[in-house]
Amino acid sequence: MKLGFVSAILPDRTLAEVLRFAAEAGYDCVELMCWPSGKADRRYAGVTHVDVRDFGEAEARQTGALAASHGIEISGLGYYPNPLAPEEGEARVAVEHIRNVIRAAAMLGVRQMNTFIGRDWSKSVESNWPRMLDTWGPLVDFAARQGVRIGIENCPMLFTGDEWPGGKNLATSPGIWRRLFADLPSPNFGLNYDPSHLVWQQMDHLRPLAEFASRLFHVHAKDVRVDRRRLDDVGILATPLEYHDPKLPGLGEIDWGAFISALGDLGYRGAVCVEVEDRDYEQSLESRQTALRKCHDFLRPHLPRK
Amino acid sequence: MKLGFVSAILPDRTLAEVLRFAAEAGYDCVELMCWPSGKADRRYAGVTHVDVRDFGEAEARQTGALAASHGIEISGLGYYPNPLAPEEGEARVAVEHIRNVIRAAAMLGVRQMNTFIGRDWSKSVESNWPRMLDTWGPLVDFAARQGVRIGIENCPMLFTGDEWPGGKNLATSPGIWRRLFADLPSPNFGLNYDPSHLVWQQMDHLRPLAEFASRLFHVHAKDVRVDRRRLDDVGILATPLEYHDPKLPGLGEIDWGAFISALGDLGYRGAVCVEVEDRDYEQSLESRQTALRKCHDFLRPHLPRK
Amino acid sequence: MKLGFVSAILPDRTLAEVLRFAAEAGYDCVELMCWPSGKADRRYAGVTHVDVRDFGEAEARQTGALAASHGIEISGLGYYPNPLAPEEGEARVAVEHIRNVIRAAAMLGVRQMNTFIGRDWSKSVESNWPRMLDTWGPLVDFAARQGVRIGIENCPMLFTGDEWPGGKNLATSPGIWRRLFADLPSPNFGLNYDPSHLVWQQMDHLRPLAEFASRLFHVHAKDVRVDRRRLDDVGILATPLEYHDPKLPGLGEIDWGAFISALGDLGYRGAVCVEVEDRDYEQSLESRQTALRKCHDFLRPHLPRK
Amino acid sequence: MKLGFVSAILPDRTLAEVLRFAAEAGYDCVELMCWPSGKADRRYAGVTHVDVRDFGEAEARQTGALAASHGIEISGLGYYPNPLAPEEGEARVAVEHIRNVIRAAAMLGVRQMNTFIGRDWSKSVESNWPRMLDTWGPLVDFAARQGVRIGIENCPMLFTGDEWPGGKNLATSPGIWRRLFADLPSPNFGLNYDPSHLVWQQMDHLRPLAEFASRLFHVHAKDVRVDRRRLDDVGILATPLEYHDPKLPGLGEIDWGAFISALGDLGYRGAVCVEVEDRDYEQSLESRQTALRKCHDFLRPHLPRK
Amino acid sequence: MKLGFVSAILPDRTLAEVLRFAAEAGYDCVELMCWPSGKADRRYAGVTHVDVRDFGEAEARQTGALAASHGIEISGLGYYPNPLAPEEGEARVAVEHIRNVIRAAAMLGVRQMNTFIGRDWSKSVESNWPRMLDTWGPLVDFAARQGVRIGIENCPMLFTGDEWPGGKNLATSPGIWRRLFADLPSPNFGLNYDPSHLVWQQMDHLRPLAEFASRLFHVHAKDVRVDRRRLDDVGILATPLEYHDPKLPGLGEIDWGAFISALGDLGYRGAVCVEVEDRDYEQSLESRQTALRKCHDFLRPHLPRK
Amino acid sequence: MKLGFVSAILPDRTLAEVLRFAAEAGYDCVELMCWPSGKADRRYAGVTHVDVRDFGEAEARQTGALAASHGIEISGLGYYPNPLAPEEGEARVAVEHIRNVIRAAAMLGVRQMNTFIGRDWSKSVESNWPRMLDTWGPLVDFAARQGVRIGIENCPMLFTGDEWPGGKNLATSPGIWRRLFADLPSPNFGLNYDPSHLVWQQMDHLRPLAEFASRLFHVHAKDVRVDRRRLDDVGILATPLEYHDPKLPGLGEIDWGAFISALGDLGYRGAVCVEVEDRDYEQSLESRQTALRKCHDFLRPHLPRK
Repeated sequence: MKLGFVSAILPDRTLAEVLRFAAEAGYDCVELMCWPSGKADRRYAGVTHVDVRDFGEAEARQTGALAASHGIEISGLGYYPNPLAPEEGEARVAVEHIRNVIRAAAMLGVRQMNTFIGRDWSKSVESNWPRMLDTWGPLVDFAARQGVRIGIENCPMLFTGDEWPGGKNLATSPGIWRRLFADLPSPNFGLNYDPSHLVWQQMDHLRPLAEFASRLFHVHAKDVRVDRRRLDDVGILATPLEYHDPKLPGLGEIDWGAFISALGDLGYRGAVCVEVEDRDYEQSLESRQTALRKCHDFLRPHLPRK
Repeated sequence: MKLGFVSAILPDRTLAEVLRFAAEAGYDCVELMCWPSGKADRRYAGVTHVDVRDFGEAEARQTGALAASHGIEISGLGYYPNPLAPEEGEARVAVEHIRNVIRAAAMLGVRQMNTFIGRDWSKSVESNWPRMLDTWGPLVDFAARQGVRIGIENCPMLFTGDEWPGGKNLATSPGIWRRLFADLPSPNFGLNYDPSHLVWQQMDHLRPLAEFASRLFHVHAKDVRVDRRRLDDVGILATPLEYHDPKLPGLGEIDWGAFISALGDLGYRGAVCVEVEDRDYEQSLESRQTALRKCHDFLRPHLPRK
Repeated sequence: MKLGFVSAILPDRTLAEVLRFAAEAGYDCVELMCWPSGKADRRYAGVTHVDVRDFGEAEARQTGALAASHGIEISGLGYYPNPLAPEEGEARVAVEHIRNVIRAAAMLGVRQMNTFIGRDWSKSVESNWPRMLDTWGPLVDFAARQGVRIGIENCPMLFTGDEWPGGKNLATSPGIWRRLFADLPSPNFGLNYDPSHLVWQQMDHLRPLAEFASRLFHVHAKDVRVDRRRLDDVGILATPLEYHDPKLPGLGEIDWGAFISALGDLGYRGAVCVEVEDRDYEQSLESRQTALRKCHDFLRPHLPRK
Repeated sequence: MKLGFVSAILPDRTLAEVLRFAAEAGYDCVELMCWPSGKADRRYAGVTHVDVRDFGEAEARQTGALAASHGIEISGLGYYPNPLAPEEGEARVAVEHIRNVIRAAAMLGVRQMNTFIGRDWSKSVESNWPRMLDTWGPLVDFAARQGVRIGIENCPMLFTGDEWPGGKNLATSPGIWRRLFADLPSPNFGLNYDPSHLVWQQMDHLRPLAEFASRLFHVHAKDVRVDRRRLDDVGILATPLEYHDPKLPGLGEIDWGAFISALGDLGYRGAVCVEVEDRDYEQSLESRQTALRKCHDFLRPHLPRK
Repeated sequence: MKLGFVSAILPDRTLAEVLRFAAEAGYDCVELMCWPSGKADRRYAGVTHVDVRDFGEAEARQTGALAASHGIEISGLGYYPNPLAPEEGEARVAVEHIRNVIRAAAMLGVRQMNTFIGRDWSKSVESNWPRMLDTWGPLVDFAARQGVRIGIENCPMLFTGDEWPGGKNLATSPGIWRRLFADLPSPNFGLNYDPSHLVWQQMDHLRPLAEFASRLFHVHAKDVRVDRRRLDDVGILATPLEYHDPKLPGLGEIDWGAFISALGDLGYRGAVCVEVEDRDYEQSLESRQTALRKCHDFLRPHLPRK
Repeated sequence: MKLGFVSAILPDRTLAEVLRFAAEAGYDCVELMCWPSGKADRRYAGVTHVDVRDFGEAEARQTGALAASHGIEISGLGYYPNPLAPEEGEARVAVEHIRNVIRAAAMLGVRQMNTFIGRDWSKSVESNWPRMLDTWGPLVDFAARQGVRIGIENCPMLFTGDEWPGGKNLATSPGIWRRLFADLPSPNFGLNYDPSHLVWQQMDHLRPLAEFASRLFHVHAKDVRVDRRRLDDVGILATPLEYHDPKLPGLGEIDWGAFISALGDLGYRGAVCVEVEDRDYEQSLESRQTALRKCHDFLRPHLPRK
C-alpha cells in the first residue's frame, strides 16, 4: 500500500508546493483536488490543484512530470460536489465537471477519480433513486470508456441542520452500496472507503471490507471521536456533529493497525490517503503541515516502505 | 414501587376483564387506555378502557369501585396521540381529548395522565418549538389547575419511512427534556420514562435518571434488542425498525435489576408498567396474556410486594 | 419456529413414552434417533426410537399416527456416525444406514435427516476431501431423489485424545461449509446448526447465519461454558474438553434471545431442538427429564406458541 | 454440591419450622445460627436456632433426629461475632461462645462451624495481627482436637461510618488469607467463601478459588450490585454501603453458573448456602420466605439434585 | 489550551533553568513550586522555584520578565501542604504560607494558586468539616480580595499506611467537591483537576467535568496503572500504592485524547500541566528531563499550538 | 530491565555490525544467534553471529571485548532447533549443538542460552514425554554444571500444515511448563517468555507471570494480531497462521506497558529482546533496521535507561 494525503488541506499552496511538501514529509502519493477554479462555499471544498477545465496533452505531460520529479505518485483526482442537488443548475455543473475530471484522469494515466453520489437531502433514499440512476448510468459508462475508475466516498455529508435529514450523499452504508453496485454493476464503479464515517454511524468499519473487496478503489484515512457525554444527551436523532468530532488518524477511536491489516489481508495494494479534517489543526498553514507530518509518522509503521 | 401493565395490549377485553386478569396475574396496578372510542389507525392505539368523553361523578365512582373490588390500583390514564400533527384537525382533536383525560383523572383521583408531546415530523425540533409552546402552555396550566400530573413518554414515534425523519413526538432526549422543563417549568409536567427508547438511540438509559428524578412521574417497562448484523448493514441513518426490535422485559438488552435499583435509589416509588410491544406475542389474546404473565414473573423479584 | 428436543437423551424410553413426555412438557416437536438397533459405544449414540432397517409403509403410517396422536411433530430423523471412519467396515455400515434413514424419512413425509460428514481424524481436511466427495456425492444425490434434506451438524467431534487431532466430522467451520456447498451444491444438502460448537472454537456464532441462511435446515439448542481458568492454563492446543463444558441452554454463554431473533430475522421457521449434553443432568431418567422441562421453560419465551 | 440457606433470615421461626420450610422449598441443607440466646444488636445477628450453651448428648440426638426427619442436612453451625473487639469483654464472650459452637458441632457430627476472625476496626491489619494470633491459635487447636473445621467468612464487616475504617473482620482478601493460613496452618482452618464481598472490593471472585481450593469449607451464595452512579460520585474511599447493595443471588452482578462451575471443577462438593441480605426482602416473614423460594429456583439448575 | 509542566520534578534547577528547559522542550507554560525554602520531607514537596516569603514588586517584575524572556507563561503558583494537619503548628505554617503564595500570585498577575484542602487523616470527612470551614473560609475570602483563584488538587494524599485511613486531603470526590462549593461558594474557589486520582478510586474521570466545568481552574496531566493482579490480591481496602502506580501520561490507562476533547468541549482554555510522578523516571536529572520531553511529544498532538 | 533485540533479523550482518547498529539505535543488549554455520531451512533460523563450534578462550575474549567496546551486553546465546525431531539425525545434531552453545555461554560469562524443547509434531504431548525426559535430563544437568541457565521459548512452532497438528516445541502452556519444571526441577531450567504466543492461543499472557516468576530467565518482545474475520471463518481448529499475524511490538494487541509493569512488579530485571517477525518488515536490510529502530523508540519509555 501507498501512504498519501488529500491535497484539500493545502488550498493555498501551488501544485508544486504540495508535491514538494509531500516528498519532504515522506509520503508516497497525493490525491489532488480538482474543483472548478473559483470561490468555494464549504470547508475543504473548492480547492484546485489540477485545473481540469482545459486540460490537454500538454497539461497532462507537465503535471505528470512535476509529480515524477518529486517522486510522488498521484493516487487519484478528487472532486466532491452534489451531483443530485435539488437546485438543477448546481447538479448540472457537478455532473459536467465530473466528466472533466474523468477525462483529465485518463489523460494523466491516473485512472482513478473520487467523488460523491450526491443526494437531495430533503428526500428519502428511495425517492432519490430514479434520478440517481439517470445521472450515474451515463457517468459510469463514460468512465468505463475512458478506462477510469470512479471511487465514491462513503461520507453521509450530514453534519448540522443545513443538510438535515438526509445529507448530501446517498452512498452511506453497505446496504446502499450493495444496491448501487447491483443497479450499476460496472467494474469501474467502486468505493473511496473512509472508515471514520461508519464509526459515528455506530457500524463496524472492518466488517464490510471482505464483501466489498473488489470495490475498494481508494482509501481515506480520517479518524473520529464519538463523545459519549454529548451522545447520551442528544441521541442519534440529533445532527451528527452534535455528538462526534472528526480527528487526525491516531487521535480518534479507530485501531489503524487492525484496519490496515484487514485491507492488506484482502489484497488491497492501493493508496491510503490522510484526510485532515480536525478543527484543532486548521488555524494556519503551519499547523496543517504539522498535522500531515504527524499523520505520516503515525501511519507509516503500519505501511512500511518496501 | 408498584408493578403494572399498560392496558393497550388487551384491546378487546372490557375494563372489568382487564382488572380481573391483572389481579389474577399478580399485578398491583394498570395504566388504562382512554382513546376516543371509535376506529384506531396504529398498533396499540385506539384502545378505550375508560371512555372519558362524558365522564361524570357517577362514572368516576363506578370505575374506582371496580378497580378497588379487584385490589388493583389505576397508575394513570393513557392517551398517546400527536397533538402537533401537521393536519390541524387531528391536532385539535388530540388537544381537546387530552383535556378530557386530565379531567377524568382528576375526578378519579388518579392524578396522573400519560401522553406524547407530538411533532410535525417533517420539520426540525427548532421549527416545531413555537407551536409546541402555544399548544402545551395551556394544557400544562389546565393540568396544574386540575391537580393532575402529565407524564410525557419519551418515545420518538419514529419507526419506518412513514414518520421519517423526525418522528411524531419531540420529547426524545435529555437535551430536549431539559429545554421542555425550562420553558414549561410546572411541577405537574414530567416524564413517563421508557428506558428502551434510549437504548436504540445509543444512549445510556440510566444516566438521565438522577438529573430528572423530580420529573419521573410514571415508568414503562419495555425492552429492546438492537440487531448488530442489521445495524452494521444500514447504520443509524436508516429508519429505526430496520435495526431494532421491541421486546418483552427480560428478552432484550436492558438489565432490569440495575434499572429498578437506580429508580429506587433516587426515591422513585411510583408505577412500573409493562408495555407489551413484541411482535412475537401479538397473535392472540392468549399469547398476549401469556406475555403479561411472563413479564410479571420476570420483574416481580426486583419489585417485591411489601 | 418450533421448539423440540433430540430424543437421544431418553434412550431407555419407548417412542410412545418419548412422544407423551414431549407433549406433557409442552414441546412442539422431536428429532428421533435412528441408530441401528444394538450396542452403542459413545455417549448419546446408539439410541433407536425409530428402527429404520425394515421400515415400510405400515411402520411409517404407525409412527406418523403415534406422533399425531400426541400432537408432536417429527422435526427430523437423526443418526450421527462417522461415514469417513478409517476402518472401512465402520464407514460402509454408516453410509448404508444413512440411506436407510433417508428412505424412512421420505416414507414418513418428514423430509429431514441429520448426521455428520465424518472424518479420518488422523488426517488433514485436505487429505480427507477426495474420499469425502466419493462418499457424499452419491448420498446427496440419493437424498435429493427421495426429496429428503440432509442436515450436517457442525460438531467437530473432537473431545479428548481419542479423536485428536482432527475430530470425527469435517464440517466444523464456515470456511469448510462454503467449500462443501460449492463442491456438492444440491439444495438438499445443508446444516443442522448447533451454535455451541462455534463458541468454544472462539468464533462468532451469529455471523455465519446470514451467509448460510438457505442452508439452515435444522437447529440444535445446546449451550457451552468456556472455562477461562482452565483455558489460560492449557490454551487452544489442548483437547477441547480440557477447557470447555457442554451445558443446558441458559446455563452457558450463549444469548439465546439474540440467537433466535437472528434466526427469525433471516426467515428461519424450522425446528430448534434442545440437545441435552450436560454431565450435571445425566444421573437418572428423572434428572434428564427435569433438564428437558427446564430447557423448555427457558426457551419458550423466545419461541412463543402461535 | 448441596443447596442450602443460612437460617439467620428466619429469626422468629423455631428450628422445626426452619427445617420444615427448607424441605418444602426443596433445599438440601441449612446453616443453623447459634448466637447466645438474648438480644441482638445488628441486622441478621443474634439468631438462635441451636442453643449451644448447654448442649449435651440429648440435645445433639434430638437436633440430629429433627433434621433427619425433614431430610435436611445441617451444613454447619454459624456464629459471627467480633472475637477481636476492642472492648475486651465483648471479645471474651465471643471467643468463649465460639468454643461452645465448636463443641456442639462435634457432638452433632456436623464438623463445620462458621464465623469471623474479628478486628479492632480502628487499627491497621498489622496492628491487629499479634492479638489475632493469640486469640486464634488456641481456637484453631481446639477445633482440630474436636475434629471440627472452622470456616472464616470473608466479609469485611465494613458498611458505614460505624465500622470505619477497618471493618470488624480481618479476613477480607487472598493476600490476608495466605498470611492467615501460613501463620495458622491447621487443615481445620479455612474459608466460608462468599463471592459477593470480592465484587464490591473490585476483585475477581473466581481467581482465588484455585489457590484456596483446599481451604474451601463452606460457601455463601449472596449477590451484590455496585451502583456506578453512586460510585462515580463518592469513590472507593467512601464507606462501602454508599455505593453497593447486597442482593439475592440472580439479582446482582455475579454469574452464578460460572461460579458454581468453577467450584465444581476444583472438586468442591460441599454446601452452597443462600444468605438473604437484600433490603427489598426484609419486610415480613412472607417476603423473606418468598426470597428463599426464588433463590432455590434460581440456583437449583446449576446444582441439580443427583 | 496550554501545555505545561509542574516544576516540582526539577527541584535542583534554578527558575531560569526551568524556564529555559520548558522553552526548549516546546512547552507553553509552567506551574512554579513555591514551598517555603528549606528541607522537604515528602517526594516532590519542598521545591522552591519562587520564594514567596519576601516577594515584593521588584521580585514580581523580575520573575515576570524572566518568564516572558523565555516565552513561557506561568500557569499558576503551587504549594501543596496539609493545612488541616493534626499537629497545629504544621497547619498554621501551611495556612500562613498559602497566604504568601496568594499574595505573590496577585503581584505576578498570575491569579492562580494551587494547593490541597488538607485533612486530619485519622478522622472521618464529617469530623474534619468544621475545622475545614474555619480554616478555609478566611483563605478563600483573602484570595477573592486579591483577585486570585485557588485550585484544589483532588489527590487523596493516601498512599501507604502512613496516611491511612483518610489521607491528607479532603477534596477527593465529586460528592465532596459539591459540598465544598456549596459551603464556600466563592467563584475564586475551584479545582486543580487531576484525572489519575479518579481512576484508582474506580471512578469515571470524564463524568464530573460537565458538572464542575465552572470550577475547572487548572489541570494536572498524570497517568496511572491499576495492577489487576495486585488488586485481585489485596482489594480496595488495602492502601492504594499496594495496587496502583502513577505513570507518565501515555504510559497508563487514561485516554488523553478523550480527556482533552472533553475539556475542550466544555470550554476549558487553561493550562494542562504534566506532573511527573513515575518511579521509572526519577533516577537522574537526565531521566526526568527525558520524561518531560516524552510527555510533551505525546500530549502535543491533542493540544496543538495555535 | 534491559532492552535488546534478537540478532536473527540481521542474518547478513557481521557480529561487529550487529553490535554497532545496536549501540547506534540505543539498545542495551542483544541475544546472539548461534546456529551451526551453513544453510538454513526456515525463516529466521540458521543465523550465526557467534560460531560456537570451535569456541575457545580466545574466541570468548574477543567476542566479549567486541561487545564491551560497543557498550552492548550479550543477553544470551540463542539456537532454536527441534531436539525431539522424528528424524533421529536431526535431533542428535540439535542436542550436540545445544551443548556447544551452553559451553560457549559459560566461557563468555553470559550464563544464559535460549532454545526450544522440540517435539515430534505428529504425536501427542504424552507420547513425546518419555523421550523428552531422556533428552533433556542430561542437557539440563550439563547446563547446571556449566553454570548456564537454559531458557525455553514458549513458541508452539505450529504455523501451517507442515507442523500440524502438534508443532515442533512442547513448551506451549503453563500446564506443560508446570509439568516440565516438576520433572526437571533444576534452577537452571526456565523460560524465555514470549507473550505473543499466549495471545493467539487465547490465553491471558499476564496471568502466568506470578506463578513462574522464578523461571523467567529471558523475555522476547514480539506482538501479534488475531484477525477476527479470519478466525470467525476457520476457527481454532485451523492452522494458526490462517487467523493470526506476528507483528512488531506496538503494532499488535499486547499492552506493553501493562506487560512490562507486571514483569517489574515481580522483580524481573533481565533482558527484554525485540524479536522482529513481521512480514511487512522483511523486504530489505533497511526495512528490518527501521523496524528495530521503531521498536526501540516504542518500548524505551516503558524501560527507561537508569
